[in-house]
Amino acid sequence: MPAPGSTDRTRVRRLPDKAVTDREVLHRVLDAGLVGHLSVADDQGRPYVLPVAYARDGDRVLIHGSTGSRLFRSLAAGAPTCLTVTLLDGLVVARSAFESSMNYRCAMVLGTCEVVDGEAKTAALDLLTDHLMPGRRAELRAHKNKELAATLVLALPLDEASVKISAGVPDDDEDDLDTEVWAGVVPLAETYCDPVPAPDLRFELPVPDYVRTWRR
Amino acid sequence: MPAPGSTDRTRVRRLPDKAVTDREVLHRVLDAGLVGHLSVADDQGRPYVLPVAYARDGDRVLIHGSTGSRLFRSLAAGAPTCLTVTLLDGLVVARSAFESSMNYRCAMVLGTCEVVDGEAKTAALDLLTDHLMPGRRAELRAHKNKELAATLVLALPLDEASVKISAGVPDDDEDDLDTEVWAGVVPLAETYCDPVPAPDLRFELPVPDYVRTWRR
Repeated sequence: MPAPGSTDRTRVRRLPDKAVTDREVLHRVLDAGLVGHLSVADDQGRPYVLPVAYARDGDRVLIHGSTGSRLFRSLAAGAPTCLTVTLLDGLVVARSAFESSMNYRCAMVLGTCEVVDGEAKTAALDLLTDHLMPGRRAELRAHKNKELAATLVLALPLDEASVKISAGVPDDDEDDLDTEVWAGVVPLAETYCDPVPAPDLRFELPVPDYVRTWRR
Repeated sequence: MPAPGSTDRTRVRRLPDKAVTDREVLHRVLDAGLVGHLSVADDQGRPYVLPVAYARDGDRVLIHGSTGSRLFRSLAAGAPTCLTVTLLDGLVVARSAFESSMNYRCAMVLGTCEVVDGEAKTAALDLLTDHLMPGRRAELRAHKNKELAATLVLALPLDEASVKISAGVPDDDEDDLDTEVWAGVVPLAETYCDPVPAPDLRFELPVPDYVRTWRR
C-alpha cells in the first residue's frame, strides 16, 4: 500500500513542509474524527460535497447511507470520490492578517468505493457504531433485515491519501516582532456536553458510563 | 435571489423534512462556521475536497488562498464548485443502531467564484479577519502590497444553496421503546480553550479581551 502523499494526485504541493507521509499518522487523524466531507461530480464535472459519518477499518474507510441516497448509489456504481477529514485545532493569531492562520489536521482520501455486503456488512455497521459511539453496541439489539436492506455500506481504500498537519505558533516577519501587539494560539476543541435523556424514556436509567466518558 | 433549496440542484431529496428554505437560516449557519469544505473536479470528473476558512459577505461567501494554489487558480478560472459547511451539534443515541444519528446544521453552496480585486480585495480580507478573529483587525497593520499580490480572494454567490438541519431526539420504533436501555442526545460543541502566548512575544502583554471572549 503506497505511503500517504506518494502518488502524483496526493503529493502535497502547497506548504509541503506540512505534509506527512507516515501511514500511522493518517490512521490517527482518521481515527480522531467522526464526520468527513465526501464529494462526487455529476456528468458535467460539477462537484457536490456532503458530510458523512465514517470509521476506519484497517486500510480502508467505511461509510454508510440510505439506499435511497443518490450520492451513495453513485458511489456504489463506482463514481470517483474524495473524502476529506479536517480536525480544527486552533487559531494562529499572528501580528499580521497575512501570517494569521489555523492549526489543523487534515486527511484526504481519493479513490472509488466498494460495496460491503453479506456478513461483512453487519460487521462494518458494528464497526461504525464502535467508532462513533464506543461501548454502545453491547446494549443494542441486532440489526433487522429491513434495516440492513435499507442501508448501503461502502468501503473506500486508503490507497491514495494525503495528510497535512499544521500545529504551529505565529511565524511573523522580523519587522513585525517589535509591534506591541499580542500574538499567540487559541486552541479549539470539540467537546461532549452533558447527555440529555430522550423524552420518551420509559425507565429510570442513569446515563451509562461509556456515554459519560466519550471524549474527542 | 432564489430561496435555499429552490433549484433542481439544491432541492433536498433525502429526509426533506430536514430541509430549510429560509435565507436567514442559511446566513446563520454560514455565520456560525469558520471552515467549509470546497470541491473542484479535474478534467476526468474526479473531485478533490479541501478545507477553507470563509466568511459570509451579504449574499456571497468570501474565501482566500495563495496565488500558488492550484485549487484557487482553478476556481478563479471559473471551475464549478461546491462549498459545504457542517456544524456538528450532537450524537443522537437511539435504541437501535439504525435510528442512531447525528444532529447537525449543514449549508451547501453551488456555483462558480468571481475574483475579488482592487479596493474590494482589501475590504474582503478585512471581512475575513472580522469573521474569523473578531476585534483583531484594529490591532493589525495594513496589508502589504506583496501580501495582497500573493493572495487570491474569491467570492461565491449564494444563488444556489441548500440548508439541512437535524436537531432532534431519538425517534425509535415503538417496538424498541420497551427495551430497558438509555437513549438520548449528547450535544457537541466547539470550544475555544485558553489562549497560549507566542514564544517570541517581546512585550509583557495580557491576552486581549476580544480574544478571551471568542465563542462559537
